[in-house]
Amino acid sequence: MKMERTIDKKLIYKGKIIDLEVLDVELPDGNRSKREIVLHRGASAIIPIDQDGNIVMVRQYRKPVEKELLEIPAGTLEEGEDPLHCAKRELIEEIGYGAKSFEPLVSFYSTPGFTTEKLFLYIARELYKEEGEADFDEFIEVEKVKLEDAFSMVMDGKIEDAKSIIGILLAYQRLKG
Amino acid sequence: MKMERTIDKKLIYKGKIIDLEVLDVELPDGNRSKREIVLHRGASAIIPIDQDGNIVMVRQYRKPVEKELLEIPAGTLEEGEDPLHCAKRELIEEIGYGAKSFEPLVSFYSTPGFTTEKLFLYIARELYKEEGEADFDEFIEVEKVKLEDAFSMVMDGKIEDAKSIIGILLAYQRLKG
Repeated sequence: MKMERTIDKKLIYKGKIIDLEVLDVELPDGNRSKREIVLHRGASAIIPIDQDGNIVMVRQYRKPVEKELLEIPAGTLEEGEDPLHCAKRELIEEIGYGAKSFEPLVSFYSTPGFTTEKLFLYIARELYKEEGEADFDEFIEVEKVKLEDAFSMVMDGKIEDAKSIIGILLAYQRLKG
Repeated sequence: MKMERTIDKKLIYKGKIIDLEVLDVELPDGNRSKREIVLHRGASAIIPIDQDGNIVMVRQYRKPVEKELLEIPAGTLEEGEDPLHCAKRELIEEIGYGAKSFEPLVSFYSTPGFTTEKLFLYIARELYKEEGEADFDEFIEVEKVKLEDAFSMVMDGKIEDAKSIIGILLAYQRLKG
């Protein structure tokens, strides 16, 4: 395997959601290069399907891209947290629903060129209203979208968030394909 | 729209591929919060389909996740570069092919919770061998995978890179669906 050996590592920033490290690495041919790496604990994302065949989605303002995006519910793993536990917690926090069935779909790296972030994706079914504390800080609006309509929105470029595109395409494949 | 107004902005790091800013923002209810934002110029990614129905993929070591991943060809936009130009350039640099047909599929944010990175996805067809300079620095291995097999690999969790999952699912939908 053409791996890159770490020669030196410098912690540039230690934050709440991310840390930043800059590494000096040795390439397979012996040359040196720099790698800028954003450390992230990972996240879980959920495609919650209700009994009418809707995906329960969330609309929220995303400061990095300076606009509101329509996404599937998701959230960052807490230190040492199991991804399934995180999925269950975030589902309640973001949309106020629990689910009797959680099925793992796939896991993937959101952008492996510069960050460690790994996403764990679940389909949640048999939803029920949960009287948990909503995550009010996030100013999230819940929006139900028919699976077929969500699929069309992906094809038309109206869903712009990578994890949501993957979740909708896989759920459509699984449930309608 | 529930936007977040920037109160203060601090540049923590200015790098080659990414910069890091930490912002103080005012939330819609008047409270304050911090936003850690990784600035990225964006990237283009290509699903190159050859005349035998293979996707021409690349295998490369990704230091942030410390392993080799099988991905579709992609690369970062140069300052002010048009995404289509970038797609054409990266296709030659990474796999040594040009293409007579480039069709835009979708564009999306790779992980909008903490980075500005936007990805522009193209299907490239009518490939031809181009005698350009390969991007030798990246130690990339070219690997042809039948579209059906790539689709199965996504469903089996063997493709772990988000943009590649999206590209393969959309190409499969478009060409086989």
